Amino acid sequence: MTPLTPTELLTVNNWRYATKVFNPTRKVSPENWQALQQSIALSPSSFGLQPWHFIVVSSPKLREKLLPHSWGQKQVVDCSHYLVCCTRTDIDIPFIEKFIASTAEQRGVTTDSLKGYQDVVVDFVMSMTESERIVWSERQTYLALQRLMDSAALLEIDTCPIEGFVASEYGEILELPAKKIKASVCCAIGYRSEDDKYATLAKSRYPVTEIFTEV
Amino acid sequence: MTPLTPTELLTVNNWRYATKVFNPTRKVSPENWQALQQSIALSPSSFGLQPWHFIVVSSPKLREKLLPHSWGQKQVVDCSHYLVCCTRTDIDIPFIEKFIASTAEQRGVTTDSLKGYQDVVVDFVMSMTESERIVWSERQTYLALQRLMDSAALLEIDTCPIEGFVASEYGEILELPAKKIKASVCCAIGYRSEDDKYATLAKSRYPVTEIFTEV
Repeated sequence: MTPLTPTELLTVNNWRYATKVFNPTRKVSPENWQALQQSIALSPSSFGLQPWHFIVVSSPKLREKLLPHSWGQKQVVDCSHYLVCCTRTDIDIPFIEKFIASTAEQRGVTTDSLKGYQDVVVDFVMSMTESERIVWSERQTYLALQRLMDSAALLEIDTCPIEGFVASEYGEILELPAKKIKASVCCAIGYRSEDDKYATLAKSRYPVTEIFTEV
Repeated sequence: MTPLTPTELLTVNNWRYATKVFNPTRKVSPENWQALQQSIALSPSSFGLQPWHFIVVSSPKLREKLLPHSWGQKQVVDCSHYLVCCTRTDIDIPFIEKFIASTAEQRGVTTDSLKGYQDVVVDFVMSMTESERIVWSERQTYLALQRLMDSAALLEIDTCPIEGFVASEYGEILELPAKKIKASVCCAIGYRSEDDKYATLAKSRYPVTEIFTEV
């Protein structure tokens, strides 16, 4: 693909905003949705471990159930696709072994040839307590969230990241603990309504000179 | 800008990889670097708070000093731009007030008109302990990291995210505590070397069917 120009890049970055009002009648096409799912799947993560899982809430009933536990944010019910970005709570040695086996298979090599890599990953991961591992894994889930938001914008699809929800209630409604995952952050995906006054608000950002220091 | 096609999006996603060997002679142009800085500045964050700061380590001497505290990863010294993505450790009421004042100025409204918003932010942020606030803020820094990696790829610039470093040593060398920031994650930026065998390795990823569940 031809690279974007700096101007094109910043145009996309400025086009994206946290959409507050979705057009409930406009849906993301199956072709675009498949691309977004694949784009998330290709997201980087520490060691490539992918310590995440994504729940697509399609059932209108379930969305209605989640709404009161989402600060009443209507995006939950009005958007085209509502995604609950979850983090795995079982990042341990068996999980790493499964990842190494999967990598070996995809690269057509033996797991033995990846033993050195596996040892590095195990040492790093298991040096953390269980709760530290979840904190660390949740940061990876945020990489996937940003990948999703920017990939959507490149396809001219709107998103709204949602941290304002009650994770324990989501867990119960979506039966997440049984899946060994927890809800970390959500994302509403679809198309902005013409009525969303936030679409034209100036972005509030600190200037580059304030957030960068060169040494 | 014309939206990308799904194929173009996935081509860029597949082009990106964690670059292990940089071409030390090839530098990111000032024009592209400015665009990347601006792209990071435009990155989303919870409430738009931007709880981050970025240290560009240009001094070869400083990079050499960081190398032994970076698992000896040569990307630190060989890349064009080496960025230490930091998280602010002073996310408190004055920080929020400053953000609200800055937003009011950029939108040409009074701070009073943003009082309701300010209260929501203060309630949310101050309900967390100081260490929880840092954990939460670090997740935001990871959004900026992913924004950087994908924006670079769109400009056909390579990156390598680096978690393998000793944050306390980085803090001392770069005098981060005095700036009320901590090193969360690093990113080497530049151009892949033709010798980097990792460039052509098949990505190891779980299939979409395994990481997505529809309900």
